[in-house]
Amino acid sequence: MHQPSDSSNAHATPSPAVVLVSGGLDSATVLAIARRDGFEPHALSFDYGQRHRHELLAARRVCEANRVAQHIVLPLDLRSFGGSALTDTIDVPKDRSEIEMASAIPVTYVPARNTVFLSLALAWAEVLGAFDIYLGVNAVDYSGYPDCRPEFVEAFSSLAQLATRAGVEAEGKWTIHAPLIALSKSEIIRLGRQLDVDYGLTHSCYDPQDSGAACGRCDSCALRLQGFQEAGVVDPVRYQQAR
Amino acid sequence: MHQPSDSSNAHATPSPAVVLVSGGLDSATVLAIARRDGFEPHALSFDYGQRHRHELLAARRVCEANRVAQHIVLPLDLRSFGGSALTDTIDVPKDRSEIEMASAIPVTYVPARNTVFLSLALAWAEVLGAFDIYLGVNAVDYSGYPDCRPEFVEAFSSLAQLATRAGVEAEGKWTIHAPLIALSKSEIIRLGRQLDVDYGLTHSCYDPQDSGAACGRCDSCALRLQGFQEAGVVDPVRYQQAR
Repeated sequence: MHQPSDSSNAHATPSPAVVLVSGGLDSATVLAIARRDGFEPHALSFDYGQRHRHELLAARRVCEANRVAQHIVLPLDLRSFGGSALTDTIDVPKDRSEIEMASAIPVTYVPARNTVFLSLALAWAEVLGAFDIYLGVNAVDYSGYPDCRPEFVEAFSSLAQLATRAGVEAEGKWTIHAPLIALSKSEIIRLGRQLDVDYGLTHSCYDPQDSGAACGRCDSCALRLQGFQEAGVVDPVRYQQAR
Repeated sequence: MHQPSDSSNAHATPSPAVVLVSGGLDSATVLAIARRDGFEPHALSFDYGQRHRHELLAARRVCEANRVAQHIVLPLDLRSFGGSALTDTIDVPKDRSEIEMASAIPVTYVPARNTVFLSLALAWAEVLGAFDIYLGVNAVDYSGYPDCRPEFVEAFSSLAQLATRAGVEAEGKWTIHAPLIALSKSEIIRLGRQLDVDYGLTHSCYDPQDSGAACGRCDSCALRLQGFQEAGVVDPVRYQQAR
């Protein structure tokens, strides 16, 4: 890891880090962790044709509340490729049991999404002179996505070292931080509350109403609601039906 | 490698492969190689804010001449990040000696470009059910770009296997084909001529005139001209000054 500035030294300039911010609760927590770790966060979000574009409004709110150094929302039309319920005309599955959610990679999987997002974070980080990238992947409540596993994150770190001028010229060592990877949703929420994350600013639903109210029934809502319940905390976002 | 169809079996449907096509001479050659290998090429180009957008016209010409199954030109605004002479307001270096060109990674390096391009090729390939990606990187006349080396390509193959549903569910094994990686520019040109590549359709110059005429002086023109000279072939594209 690049040595971030110590909070005891108010005169040091914090090292930059790129943080992938979707607008969901995981990435809002990761943003707070990057700040706690002493980095100056530069936030990156993608307008990739996701049907739940409300998350981009949430990303903006979260970044403003955290006073990030910069927030880029990059247009990236993954609909050109199709193949996912999040970007195509496939229906978002709802009301699935825990067993159903764990049994197979769901149609909401966006092919190679985290590879694409990390590669663009890598491009920006190299321009910034950063060697640290944060993302909120999670291998516990991970919906079965292959690109949320520790072995994927490790493989990307190795790739980054080989792929970049910064890596080759040995100016530093790339670190892909996935601080939530071994935490359950309720552990993430408890950690976030310690770091004063305002989860009321976040958005998780795959299929929200036009008003932004969450459906409460898609896999993402189900995992979120279960996490808040297990953490013994009330979820501050709005749902279509009172819970 | 996924088993491509055999040309002796005219009834078999060729397996799809995604081919990164920039419009330059390398990728035009790679497209012909993918076809020779028995694949049905799906071509992917990027409109990434490159100052040499003439290469996109060349990409279109090359894809049409090769009757690819599909050609996607994906808008991807890497200018948001800056940091390269190809996407920023930094001047393109010209009239550099071979020693200068080999001495350091030049300002035309686009941070993490091949990582970004391969990750998007991976996303599309997974949707297509393809397990093969072709790209025209070259470690000999490679301008010192770190993401043109064999170890980078191997690291990306490993990543692809971990990153995708197709890799995890063991439907097949990903292969990143870089058939030019050990060839000199003149060897590429000789190979391409055997495969009937029309180099008059291609574009290599980093800093062309509005008419599309090549400058003849940037690193890309210099490598191209030297390659044609060594191959004993006249370069069919237009230059600003007769050569």
